[in-house]
Amino acid sequence: MGLVSNIFKEEDIKSLQGYMGIGHNRYSTMGASKLVNCQPFVVDTAQNWIAVAHNGELVNAKSLRKKVLASNVGLSTKSDSELITQLLSISPPCGEPEGANWPSRIKRLMNETQCAYALVILTKDGIFGVRDPYGNRPLCVGKILRSSDNGKECAGWLLSSESCSFPSIGAEKLYDVEPGEIVQLTRKGVSRLEIVQPLRLSDPTAFCIFEYVYFARADTVFEGQMVYNVRQECGRQLADEAPVEAEIVSTVPDSATPAAIGYAERSGIPYVEVLTRNRYVGRTFIQPSTRLRKLGVARKFGPLTANFLNKRIILIDDSIVRGNTMAPIIKVLREAGAAEVHIRVASPPLKHPCYMGINIPTKEELIANVMSPDELAKYLGADSLVYLSVDGLQSAVRKGIQMTTSKPPGHCTACLTGKYPVELEW
Amino acid sequence: MGLVSNIFKEEDIKSLQGYMGIGHNRYSTMGASKLVNCQPFVVDTAQNWIAVAHNGELVNAKSLRKKVLASNVGLSTKSDSELITQLLSISPPCGEPEGANWPSRIKRLMNETQCAYALVILTKDGIFGVRDPYGNRPLCVGKILRSSDNGKECAGWLLSSESCSFPSIGAEKLYDVEPGEIVQLTRKGVSRLEIVQPLRLSDPTAFCIFEYVYFARADTVFEGQMVYNVRQECGRQLADEAPVEAEIVSTVPDSATPAAIGYAERSGIPYVEVLTRNRYVGRTFIQPSTRLRKLGVARKFGPLTANFLNKRIILIDDSIVRGNTMAPIIKVLREAGAAEVHIRVASPPLKHPCYMGINIPTKEELIANVMSPDELAKYLGADSLVYLSVDGLQSAVRKGIQMTTSKPPGHCTACLTGKYPVELEW
Amino acid sequence: MGLVSNIFKEEDIKSLQGYMGIGHNRYSTMGASKLVNCQPFVVDTAQNWIAVAHNGELVNAKSLRKKVLASNVGLSTKSDSELITQLLSISPPCGEPEGANWPSRIKRLMNETQCAYALVILTKDGIFGVRDPYGNRPLCVGKILRSSDNGKECAGWLLSSESCSFPSIGAEKLYDVEPGEIVQLTRKGVSRLEIVQPLRLSDPTAFCIFEYVYFARADTVFEGQMVYNVRQECGRQLADEAPVEAEIVSTVPDSATPAAIGYAERSGIPYVEVLTRNRYVGRTFIQPSTRLRKLGVARKFGPLTANFLNKRIILIDDSIVRGNTMAPIIKVLREAGAAEVHIRVASPPLKHPCYMGINIPTKEELIANVMSPDELAKYLGADSLVYLSVDGLQSAVRKGIQMTTSKPPGHCTACLTGKYPVELEW
Amino acid sequence: MGLVSNIFKEEDIKSLQGYMGIGHNRYSTMGASKLVNCQPFVVDTAQNWIAVAHNGELVNAKSLRKKVLASNVGLSTKSDSELITQLLSISPPCGEPEGANWPSRIKRLMNETQCAYALVILTKDGIFGVRDPYGNRPLCVGKILRSSDNGKECAGWLLSSESCSFPSIGAEKLYDVEPGEIVQLTRKGVSRLEIVQPLRLSDPTAFCIFEYVYFARADTVFEGQMVYNVRQECGRQLADEAPVEAEIVSTVPDSATPAAIGYAERSGIPYVEVLTRNRYVGRTFIQPSTRLRKLGVARKFGPLTANFLNKRIILIDDSIVRGNTMAPIIKVLREAGAAEVHIRVASPPLKHPCYMGINIPTKEELIANVMSPDELAKYLGADSLVYLSVDGLQSAVRKGIQMTTSKPPGHCTACLTGKYPVELEW
Repeated sequence: MGLVSNIFKEEDIKSLQGYMGIGHNRYSTMGASKLVNCQPFVVDTAQNWIAVAHNGELVNAKSLRKKVLASNVGLSTKSDSELITQLLSISPPCGEPEGANWPSRIKRLMNETQCAYALVILTKDGIFGVRDPYGNRPLCVGKILRSSDNGKECAGWLLSSESCSFPSIGAEKLYDVEPGEIVQLTRKGVSRLEIVQPLRLSDPTAFCIFEYVYFARADTVFEGQMVYNVRQECGRQLADEAPVEAEIVSTVPDSATPAAIGYAERSGIPYVEVLTRNRYVGRTFIQPSTRLRKLGVARKFGPLTANFLNKRIILIDDSIVRGNTMAPIIKVLREAGAAEVHIRVASPPLKHPCYMGINIPTKEELIANVMSPDELAKYLGADSLVYLSVDGLQSAVRKGIQMTTSKPPGHCTACLTGKYPVELEW
Repeated sequence: MGLVSNIFKEEDIKSLQGYMGIGHNRYSTMGASKLVNCQPFVVDTAQNWIAVAHNGELVNAKSLRKKVLASNVGLSTKSDSELITQLLSISPPCGEPEGANWPSRIKRLMNETQCAYALVILTKDGIFGVRDPYGNRPLCVGKILRSSDNGKECAGWLLSSESCSFPSIGAEKLYDVEPGEIVQLTRKGVSRLEIVQPLRLSDPTAFCIFEYVYFARADTVFEGQMVYNVRQECGRQLADEAPVEAEIVSTVPDSATPAAIGYAERSGIPYVEVLTRNRYVGRTFIQPSTRLRKLGVARKFGPLTANFLNKRIILIDDSIVRGNTMAPIIKVLREAGAAEVHIRVASPPLKHPCYMGINIPTKEELIANVMSPDELAKYLGADSLVYLSVDGLQSAVRKGIQMTTSKPPGHCTACLTGKYPVELEW
Repeated sequence: MGLVSNIFKEEDIKSLQGYMGIGHNRYSTMGASKLVNCQPFVVDTAQNWIAVAHNGELVNAKSLRKKVLASNVGLSTKSDSELITQLLSISPPCGEPEGANWPSRIKRLMNETQCAYALVILTKDGIFGVRDPYGNRPLCVGKILRSSDNGKECAGWLLSSESCSFPSIGAEKLYDVEPGEIVQLTRKGVSRLEIVQPLRLSDPTAFCIFEYVYFARADTVFEGQMVYNVRQECGRQLADEAPVEAEIVSTVPDSATPAAIGYAERSGIPYVEVLTRNRYVGRTFIQPSTRLRKLGVARKFGPLTANFLNKRIILIDDSIVRGNTMAPIIKVLREAGAAEVHIRVASPPLKHPCYMGINIPTKEELIANVMSPDELAKYLGADSLVYLSVDGLQSAVRKGIQMTTSKPPGHCTACLTGKYPVELEW
Repeated sequence: MGLVSNIFKEEDIKSLQGYMGIGHNRYSTMGASKLVNCQPFVVDTAQNWIAVAHNGELVNAKSLRKKVLASNVGLSTKSDSELITQLLSISPPCGEPEGANWPSRIKRLMNETQCAYALVILTKDGIFGVRDPYGNRPLCVGKILRSSDNGKECAGWLLSSESCSFPSIGAEKLYDVEPGEIVQLTRKGVSRLEIVQPLRLSDPTAFCIFEYVYFARADTVFEGQMVYNVRQECGRQLADEAPVEAEIVSTVPDSATPAAIGYAERSGIPYVEVLTRNRYVGRTFIQPSTRLRKLGVARKFGPLTANFLNKRIILIDDSIVRGNTMAPIIKVLREAGAAEVHIRVASPPLKHPCYMGINIPTKEELIANVMSPDELAKYLGADSLVYLSVDGLQSAVRKGIQMTTSKPPGHCTACLTGKYPVELEW
């Protein structure tokens, strides 16, 4: 539990033996944030020990759970990732004996549950990487070269959700795992085994569009394009869709910066910083009075007053979820002397829950279900507020896409449109 | 991991809801001392959640494990207690549907594995207490009365390995669970459901005799007699079997004190304390030189020099396992001026490993397999050393026994005699 | 803050350089139990760095503090031990320049404050050991021999409050530091420098009698006699002073055991254990109901019921301070079937606060100021209760004394009699 | 020891009583980073308790220390801040009795030591704020209004090194404390008591120019100008002094961003982000191979490859001290496809140690003393490297200055020029 760099010390890593390993930095969606739910799940099976890490959330978790319990397996957690692990270890009661034929077991699993997951499975036969048939969760393959002790260069292979992790250890991205694809990493290299199609064959792929908007790191590359550039393009699109007269364009640092730069570029209005981020404000700060509590979020940001005194500001944010953080920021800017503050949001209003692995609040908590943009502007103390359109977002995403997979790229926009790529189970 | 009073704080206990609970202060035998092996094991099953705590060790753990894995259950630990938990959740493939008929499931389990265990099983239908058909591990039932808020007295029922836990919370012992017996605790009271006989019906019961010698707390009552008095009787027996001329009888505090008092009483030689125990010496003490390292254990004890100067001491110990602790104690006594030191051990030599839940070292580490009593006396620096005989121990145990169970009481002496009560699996 | 063995790890000790060192395991009297008051106090002075550890409490702390503050020194704590440290560093304004003449500075200090302290002072010129002119706090010198790397034996010298610490590291006691004496330990050995007399020359020495009664470890030797034997003699004396008809004599383990054995010996009534001590009960235990809270202390002790059922018990305690712990013990014994319980206390009633280093509650909290012995017996639920007389205690202390110092041994009985050895300052 | 928000929890703050308080988040310069050196220093004096927090370093610490020790005060740390505290408590031996006349004591202190310090001193008479006569360390006064329980608005006053702390709690800056000024904060308000001139009256003030370059937060206002704008102006100045042909100007995030924006603005070359900052890389990261160790710093930054592929980059950094961090960043950019990398440093070369409170490495470690700019460019793998001139920096600092103090503003440039504002003591 906690930050990886606090938990794993150099001596922990040094004590590891062997040449394969998996890990997962879990952001809990189903199954509470408790030690018992930490991944990978490690179990002994009739085919030796396996370990499984799972990014995503199973849309048919409830019926799967009943099925596993009915097959006499006691489950020690409420996590859907334990379900996956036990399903892999179960042999079909009256089929061919599979033994340690992991690809066969994995395909069987993929037919039982279709969405949403990226998996890494550690077995004695290597590490298997799996992406669900809809490609909802990302997964990519990388390669690393290092000089061994005898001077020869030797290669290693890696799986990661985001390509940005590769350069940080001196590795490079090879390719995205395709929707439904199973790959196998062994000492000898990486094999692309097979692509499992969705049961409903006509279904398009549905890569989570919110990875572009918010989750992924800006230097990650999905579908051949850098996330930063998609966000910047969203900013340009937003400048076209929602222009406003002002002296400066600015950002809520750091995540909205590419969109702000894109907006500034397209609109011709200069990009100017209006807030510094206080790196030392944590969650535990003391809030002695209602007045300070209201400032709350604003304490994270210091106003660069001289940069915006008596000026009209277009303030870009990447997304608005609950709407809690923006009001105090606007208040800080106004009190410090901003003439006007116009909010432009570089993504469409978030209106629907996600059942595929993204932790989005309930419908009632999503501010876009409660207020119109104009009402929200008033509530936040802004002079105006406009969201990017769904079409605008999709066109920004599609603009730079490069065909890296065999299927035409489709995107899940369920949280924005309510159109889920697969049937949900209630 | 750690001492109960360090782990569970008042607020943890207060946050508990409901009217039933189980816990286990595990002293690891099979399965390493790791967080993952902490008990109780809690699993969701087709018959709702259950929790299981297990004291003991299964003599057929290996074949059971194979069986469970073959039935498609992935096991997340190496613990035999997890085996028990999964076996309880498995339905027989082609038998009657048992559903949540826990007594039926427990009986099935008891036929699969016969020794050694005491179990408490928490289900929606109450807590089940189970003792293996050989009665190797202890388990007893207690009752507590407390005034409820409306002034009425209300009763609660308890299960515990040792009866000494009852007075400490104001409860009292009702009776020992019999070998093979299943009891059920609910809100309404405690029901004695059934007694499962060993598969080899002629087998006698085999309650662990080492509980009397070493493990149990002195104020615990087994089979109608207080452990303290059995130990005292061992001392008396030892005085008969192994007399020696001396001025004083003494103890290695605190565990050998009842035996020492018994020896003094029978021999007529006065009981005198020769050592104080240093409460502050922990395991982490610093040992800067070989000389101090040799003193090692002795640092736990301060010599009460004036009590034994120029006197012959009979020093009683409760048992000798590896023989590491006695030599430095004798050295301390001799250097402080003891005329002679005669060791009398209030139990027979420990020669065989235990496979039923007691953590005894390997044969090679057991000093009684390496040296005769005379060799050991010489090695330890004692003037003589005599163990209690196996017959002497058995007669001391039987002397005060009161028939509290329906079967004649038998005792497992495997660690002393090598005669195991059930077949072992290699 | 905490237990020495938890704070100082082997690597801490190994990292120490040099051949001299001091430490203090402080039980706070004046100055709260806070990190800032941890000893030794280390200060840089015009005569280089010194470190001071102080056992005791200064009776003239208030006026000394004013004096030090008036001399322009800012004090960073409320501790009287910091006063001592600063007084050592202060040069007399218009006397001879003392420089690093530490004996001269120490004598000056001893004339400023006469009671109560044992000091160890680490300087570049060695370690000085100092006992106040009244000898209220104990201090003794020990010697240790160890083989050096070249095979030669080399000697070290030690200072300690209690001699029991010497055998635990393989050292032996040489002698008690005399009241008012200054000794100096260097690489070459130990020198007895000088004895400073009390300003009121006729005053007798006043070694704290409560060290015998309660504080010291039983294997410590003061004034040539082992503390255990003094306590045993108190038990004998108590048997003479306060006999009662009963079947058994017993102890509240462990501190009252020597007195109980002495009482049994003199009275001819057998010594029998009635309580086991639960080693695992800490302070943090949960007390869910008034009923359990009342049991409170009793939870530390398990009743050895079979040893006292239907018997009359003489229960010896070493002292009664607040009287909180005895009532629940008596209740446990009675509920388990004791016929009668007679309390005999192996020390006189505690009636007066200590201003010399022993942490005794206020007058109002001392139960002996609130109830007569008979009232107390009734309050505790005992059949009778008798204290040892002051004369009895003094005669028990004097009986085995050996003249190890030049002055006739006198004892401070202030907490029992209200007669303080020096004038107090209010 | 540690981050404020980790150390002080809400309950710690709530437990505070009274209406005045001081604290110091110390970045150790003289006196190691140890608990004992934590500020404020709190001492009892003949004039009651005082507490002192000190930002800065005393240039005459050595001779002051000798003086204090000679006056019979034992010092418990090596910190120069303890010297200040003790000097405040010392009364002059043969002057007028000062008593609790704190302004008089503070003036005496300021004549003993002239540089460098900002002090806050908590006494029973209020909090005194003091800035050294050279104004080397910053200190400013703020005001906060809050509604009290009865609905009335009540005011509080604050002292802070940087004005940016005021808005974060809803307060506002009133004015800079002037060089040599003593202010007093009480319940009634803030009084400007007096300005102490330097002993060498002709000396100009010497506010640390490195506060502008590196230390202060960008939203702090010194001398009437926002630090962000000074850094931006440094960037503009640098564009004038050191132009170079390139497609993009960028920054090493986050501290060099204002300078990069200023450079882009003046040069007309677009400002483009080339690196993302990885918020999760701490100090404890594991470095399993030499190759990764070399990447080291680069792991903090992810390359935004698509933004700079085949382009010439002007990379702005705020300062270069040891030169360790830049080489791997350049390597990352080159490997990801940058055509050229030109380093422009928005401050002059750092060549001399600071003795006034800034922790600058030794001369030998300062890369500017070891290599010329061209050598450094080669060493770092850059195509060119140019520093801002000292004149350029000074003109950027002076450009926006507003006279907020009575003396003409002067700046300490010792670390850049070797010209120290006061005499040093060796």
